[in-house]
Amino acid sequence: EDATFFAGIDKIPFRPSGGPNDTMAFRHYDPKQIVMGRTMEEWLRFSVCFWHTFRGTGADPFGFPTLIRPWDDGSDTMANAKRRLRAAFEFFVKLGVKYWTFHDRDIAPEGNTLAETNRNLDEITDLALELQKKTGVKCLWATSNLFASPKYMNGAASNPDSHVVAFAATQVKKCMDIAVKLGAENFVFWGGREGYHTILNTDVLTELTNMANFFKMAAAYKKKLGFTGNLLIEPKPKEPAKHQYDYDAMTVIGFLKHFGLDKEYKLNIEPNHTTLAGHGYEHDIIMASAFGMLGSVDSNTGSPDLGWDTDQFPMDTKNATLVLKAILEQGGLKPGGLNFDCKVRRESTDLRDMFISHIGAMDTFSRGLKNAAAILEDGVIPGQVKERYSSFQTGIGEKINKGQTSFEELEEYVTKNGAPSNPSGRQEHYESMMNHYV
Amino acid sequence: EDATFFAGIDKIPFRPSGGPNDTMAFRHYDPKQIVMGRTMEEWLRFSVCFWHTFRGTGADPFGFPTLIRPWDDGSDTMANAKRRLRAAFEFFVKLGVKYWTFHDRDIAPEGNTLAETNRNLDEITDLALELQKKTGVKCLWATSNLFASPKYMNGAASNPDSHVVAFAATQVKKCMDIAVKLGAENFVFWGGREGYHTILNTDVLTELTNMANFFKMAAAYKKKLGFTGNLLIEPKPKEPAKHQYDYDAMTVIGFLKHFGLDKEYKLNIEPNHTTLAGHGYEHDIIMASAFGMLGSVDSNTGSPDLGWDTDQFPMDTKNATLVLKAILEQGGLKPGGLNFDCKVRRESTDLRDMFISHIGAMDTFSRGLKNAAAILEDGVIPGQVKERYSSFQTGIGEKINKGQTSFEELEEYVTKNGAPSNPSGRQEHYESMMNHYV
Amino acid sequence: EDATFFAGIDKIPFRPSGGPNDTMAFRHYDPKQIVMGRTMEEWLRFSVCFWHTFRGTGADPFGFPTLIRPWDDGSDTMANAKRRLRAAFEFFVKLGVKYWTFHDRDIAPEGNTLAETNRNLDEITDLALELQKKTGVKCLWATSNLFASPKYMNGAASNPDSHVVAFAATQVKKCMDIAVKLGAENFVFWGGREGYHTILNTDVLTELTNMANFFKMAAAYKKKLGFTGNLLIEPKPKEPAKHQYDYDAMTVIGFLKHFGLDKEYKLNIEPNHTTLAGHGYEHDIIMASAFGMLGSVDSNTGSPDLGWDTDQFPMDTKNATLVLKAILEQGGLKPGGLNFDCKVRRESTDLRDMFISHIGAMDTFSRGLKNAAAILEDGVIPGQVKERYSSFQTGIGEKINKGQTSFEELEEYVTKNGAPSNPSGRQEHYESMMNHYV
Amino acid sequence: EDATFFAGIDKIPFRPSGGPNDTMAFRHYDPKQIVMGRTMEEWLRFSVCFWHTFRGTGADPFGFPTLIRPWDDGSDTMANAKRRLRAAFEFFVKLGVKYWTFHDRDIAPEGNTLAETNRNLDEITDLALELQKKTGVKCLWATSNLFASPKYMNGAASNPDSHVVAFAATQVKKCMDIAVKLGAENFVFWGGREGYHTILNTDVLTELTNMANFFKMAAAYKKKLGFTGNLLIEPKPKEPAKHQYDYDAMTVIGFLKHFGLDKEYKLNIEPNHTTLAGHGYEHDIIMASAFGMLGSVDSNTGSPDLGWDTDQFPMDTKNATLVLKAILEQGGLKPGGLNFDCKVRRESTDLRDMFISHIGAMDTFSRGLKNAAAILEDGVIPGQVKERYSSFQTGIGEKINKGQTSFEELEEYVTKNGAPSNPSGRQEHYESMMNHYV
Repeated sequence: EDATFFAGIDKIPFRPSGGPNDTMAFRHYDPKQIVMGRTMEEWLRFSVCFWHTFRGTGADPFGFPTLIRPWDDGSDTMANAKRRLRAAFEFFVKLGVKYWTFHDRDIAPEGNTLAETNRNLDEITDLALELQKKTGVKCLWATSNLFASPKYMNGAASNPDSHVVAFAATQVKKCMDIAVKLGAENFVFWGGREGYHTILNTDVLTELTNMANFFKMAAAYKKKLGFTGNLLIEPKPKEPAKHQYDYDAMTVIGFLKHFGLDKEYKLNIEPNHTTLAGHGYEHDIIMASAFGMLGSVDSNTGSPDLGWDTDQFPMDTKNATLVLKAILEQGGLKPGGLNFDCKVRRESTDLRDMFISHIGAMDTFSRGLKNAAAILEDGVIPGQVKERYSSFQTGIGEKINKGQTSFEELEEYVTKNGAPSNPSGRQEHYESMMNHYV
Repeated sequence: EDATFFAGIDKIPFRPSGGPNDTMAFRHYDPKQIVMGRTMEEWLRFSVCFWHTFRGTGADPFGFPTLIRPWDDGSDTMANAKRRLRAAFEFFVKLGVKYWTFHDRDIAPEGNTLAETNRNLDEITDLALELQKKTGVKCLWATSNLFASPKYMNGAASNPDSHVVAFAATQVKKCMDIAVKLGAENFVFWGGREGYHTILNTDVLTELTNMANFFKMAAAYKKKLGFTGNLLIEPKPKEPAKHQYDYDAMTVIGFLKHFGLDKEYKLNIEPNHTTLAGHGYEHDIIMASAFGMLGSVDSNTGSPDLGWDTDQFPMDTKNATLVLKAILEQGGLKPGGLNFDCKVRRESTDLRDMFISHIGAMDTFSRGLKNAAAILEDGVIPGQVKERYSSFQTGIGEKINKGQTSFEELEEYVTKNGAPSNPSGRQEHYESMMNHYV
Repeated sequence: EDATFFAGIDKIPFRPSGGPNDTMAFRHYDPKQIVMGRTMEEWLRFSVCFWHTFRGTGADPFGFPTLIRPWDDGSDTMANAKRRLRAAFEFFVKLGVKYWTFHDRDIAPEGNTLAETNRNLDEITDLALELQKKTGVKCLWATSNLFASPKYMNGAASNPDSHVVAFAATQVKKCMDIAVKLGAENFVFWGGREGYHTILNTDVLTELTNMANFFKMAAAYKKKLGFTGNLLIEPKPKEPAKHQYDYDAMTVIGFLKHFGLDKEYKLNIEPNHTTLAGHGYEHDIIMASAFGMLGSVDSNTGSPDLGWDTDQFPMDTKNATLVLKAILEQGGLKPGGLNFDCKVRRESTDLRDMFISHIGAMDTFSRGLKNAAAILEDGVIPGQVKERYSSFQTGIGEKINKGQTSFEELEEYVTKNGAPSNPSGRQEHYESMMNHYV
Repeated sequence: EDATFFAGIDKIPFRPSGGPNDTMAFRHYDPKQIVMGRTMEEWLRFSVCFWHTFRGTGADPFGFPTLIRPWDDGSDTMANAKRRLRAAFEFFVKLGVKYWTFHDRDIAPEGNTLAETNRNLDEITDLALELQKKTGVKCLWATSNLFASPKYMNGAASNPDSHVVAFAATQVKKCMDIAVKLGAENFVFWGGREGYHTILNTDVLTELTNMANFFKMAAAYKKKLGFTGNLLIEPKPKEPAKHQYDYDAMTVIGFLKHFGLDKEYKLNIEPNHTTLAGHGYEHDIIMASAFGMLGSVDSNTGSPDLGWDTDQFPMDTKNATLVLKAILEQGGLKPGGLNFDCKVRRESTDLRDMFISHIGAMDTFSRGLKNAAAILEDGVIPGQVKERYSSFQTGIGEKINKGQTSFEELEEYVTKNGAPSNPSGRQEHYESMMNHYV
């Protein structure tokens, strides 16, 4: 039980003076360092995901598994599941993260019947609870895997067959029970099969209506359970489906508002999904935050030249700075966090690569946090932006912004004041200012 | 006044037996032919846009104008503007379309003052009204150009300067007056500069709030005018802005619902914008229709391998069939129509190319109409789709679809009925059935 | 041995009058029908690929297998391998195709040692040979799978470790032996792992040099074997690698010419790879053909809105027409063919979907063949293209085209003849002419 | 003559301690600072392009000009052309760059005849020569604009009409004369119209053959002139054409090798074109360098979420580091340089934005230079890459790399040595090492 799965690797140290090759130490992440009034740990709320880091095999559409883990015998037994979980908690502790996330189907083997599957979940979450208590690591969020099983191939909540919808509901109900048991701080829905492959066989409105009703039932069940965490929907435009209904932040916000669900749900934004939807890296985080809907972040990245989800560890400081700036501006993500929905490359086959990748990403976001705090504390960039919009603070601008004027009144204003000037947008100036910080 | 601008070109004939080289005749568009109870003309409601077809010069970011029109001396005079308009109406009549569309700034030269500009508009629309009466050609919709003038470089309704917002309001007010004067059946907003180039200098929430208030004022002014046509917003994801707030159909629907505008506005969908947003050609038309928000269509196409708006004439029969199927299913587009927001290639420099391009596109949509009608009248494809969703007509499925059940009840159902089967989605079967018609 | 794997399905009939639902019959493919002097069968040379159609499981990066075949017990035994092969030949015969293709690792299980693996291959190809003789189905091409095994994760011929390169060579050598044994008419190389994931750890020049030397050794071994088929390289831009060295047709042609290999290799073009490289569907086929390098075609399609290889069955008649036009113009593909490197959607789980998908694609290419033949036999489009370039047949144009003039002489010509005119490119006219045929 | 066009702006200072708002000073570019044995100025060889910076108007496909320059009256007169040129040289000097680049048609107005156009060029280049001498600013390269005039709408060297090809040759001949006169260190060809818009009207092989012959004539004329600079081709995949023949680095290398031109031409790589072709930012620079074909760099950037050429000023330090690393490794770019083929955003309307944008980019590349030098001088990353490929230094690996072995010998090797291992590719480790430097 107290086996060491990562022999020879101690708790990852903070070593700011480390050299380029010293990739097994933090150079920037110092959890107790205070930044803008909170510790780095409190702002960043890093989480490791179980699926990629402990169930990822390195298989891809053209290749077999490459990631062989000494504790994993490849079997679907409970014993194997428990070893994986123990290895995971050792990893969390050595890495120094305080949160983890999981899908129901990652942690426990599926049984021959739903009853057996649920018993497996009960047993494995007993162990998870024990390990959480022992280590202090908490559950950031749980989620149901409604996409891997063949039964969901045509969708879960949006399946053309009501029997499948019922089955998905049953699975989510159990997963919400588990989430409560483990003290999860949120519950996430990612609908990879909620969408279509060909419009020719699809009744879009029926599917969306059923999906909305599914979310309503989840919200009702949450209340019954007394679960106080956030319910979160994670947008993704496509893959595996050709089109997914939760395309991007604004699409989900539109869906929630249309079906009267916007008080019950927030968003879990993943930048790799944002870029696949054709936006800039930080776009959906900023939009969701502007609409008061940003609940949590799956901090990863893709390659801009690739058209599928690569779930890479985020290593770009400028992007991390933009994300953290939005988070600081909304006062933090709590109860959400920064979950690393990332996988080591299938060629990164060493156990040490599991650490190196997370360390690199945590350092990147730590730099992002420090940079964003510097930007906000300096006040130079925010001040110039505020000045740019200052005409909406008074006079006719204030009326426009508060919805208290009319075309007729604005016409009068223009008749009196003539044509506007057009001051420079100064994009390159802003870019240069940003480069001062990154 | 009765000059012939297209000498040697008569009214385009319907000649179903024409050969491949006979591209100056319709082979499919027979306006009075009855299809599913209406004439082709009534279903298709074709419209020619003034901007591309009479103001397009063939200039592109790397090249000078190529399209030299004999009636256009290149000047900004009223006389030139009037010749253009007369040429346009001759073109509409010879082509055999019943509708046209325009931007305020296309039809009349901008004066040195707003007052002069508006006088020019009054004078030119007197002529337009006369030509409309004489020819029977009607105005499908008018729209304000809020993107070409330098004053709008940082946005119109979403500009960081309230003075610009006021100016834009003044311009739209006048354009709505004109629309009423000309009996326009709709009024369109396309916000090419409503968005951002860099998030670094942008306050997204202020911009969106102002934009929403702008739309509210437009709706109020519409009521005051007694204008009964539809107000339409046209989504586009990007270009000229890096990000445009009206990204795609679902984004605009979300925006409208968030700001309580969804009863006042519908959508004008352009498939070239849809594909730039990363969707399939017909996607936004189907989504907008499903949500009851499809008002009109800018029927054009892009090249799937290009990342900018090419506004090509639509020549793909399968795409046209999918679009027309959605239109037939919602009972037509009226008061909207199929506006050709297309431009001849800058290399297509002959006057005949103006006709050939429109004829080709009209024939393509006529084939699409006949195909879609055949699909619906046969009932084979629709019947199979209906069957696919039939479990939502009764029992537990009906309860799901009507929002009358709960996770608990669905769990009971699954406990009793076990795991679902997963019938084939049969995509290739549907594709083959579709190929039967196109 | 004479078990029927597809009970209830007879040889697919030709039934040109079939209705929309009749997707289990050919409406266009009539193998013995004469088109431009050859039978459809001779022009089209259809081939079924073993990997997708008999080893595809429907698994995707987010989902488990969905395609359960009654003859396949999921084991890695020789008995299972043989059942699959028998099922495949029954499928080929019932479908009515004359060719098949395979990877070495698809047809026979990998053993614990290379020797055992090769013995498995020998045994299974004895059966394949027997089935080929019995059915008359022939091998269009064989290829080595140098991408699925973990040993190739960092590349095969371009691996940073010479031991892996040696191993890949050993595998290809055996596969070429087998190809000769089965009378394969070509041998294909697809280098899905020949490329890089990050430039940071990559020495591009060493990798390309080694890859070129690998191809030289293959060409030398081909000569030694007396193999007379074509060696073919299949371009793909990315996926699984971030960048693949065989990006597209022109990249491979450049590589072959740089390393002096262009007499030894031709190209196997897959349009789904072409579109992923940012080109139009038919582009690489036309470019490869223009350079005399088009050897064979993997006839499939992707979705233009998706950024990964979906290997869908090609169902677009216009695309098929363009491909066949290029093939007819170069006098056919022989010894290459049209190999369906396509997979049924993972939701298409019925055995009948295997047939429906191939039938739909074969019909699509049959329509493409008939359309292309009509275009060439009519001569209207080709004649207008020829006329467009006619100035290069005589005078100064002929000198330019033959490389027999100079800037000085051309300057004299312009001094004498002045500025050129610029006739219309007439794109829409050509598009309309094309629509006459499709 | 000695008018000051940029009153109030002095020579841009080097002020390493400047704050975020201090965007009118260099914080990193210190021209005489020694890095790896040369001054920063010698390594970086910065150049300002005349077309964007002095002829750019801010017009885009949806908007009118926004960039009003006090010295430019908008006329096509020689006096205006001369003022622009004087303003440009003042700008070069104040900015502190030593090189400029131009198109023939940027610097002098086109006359009514070719003779007049050429006289204008003679006159304006007299002034340019004078200004070059006076300021010490030199010409990095000249190029012919073969894309803006309507006569080139269907291509220049690849035009279907031989008369246009002759005209283009005449224009290039004159431009090469001018290049010699001004002591240009290179001559560039960018073929924005060499390609096609629709394959339907295009004879690809004729066009490519003519284009190759055109390049042969240019090389012959270069020899006749005794011009010793490099001839450079600049790849771009698309825009304005749908497909451009010079798609990317490898495509051009293939073309040059096919037509026997690879000794006469090198490449001018623009990363914004590279990313439009679907590659990573630095990819074409690294490929061109690996093949010994990297001649010069157009240092700009695009937005990864946009599908057209935005020609933005490069502001990303990591990208600049990768580019400079490749340049340092090949021993510099000389006689090429880093030409800013960038334009201020059309919203950046202040004269100061012209400086801010260049300063920001020069600082970014200066950081890139210092980072790249640190990487190479530390030797940690290069050492680990070298080690990764070390098996090709001896034994069987050396034979593979030198092309001295065979499939048979490699089979023997594998028979003796068994299966290879597969060491980790360590991508995240390399990424973390890189982050140490940027």
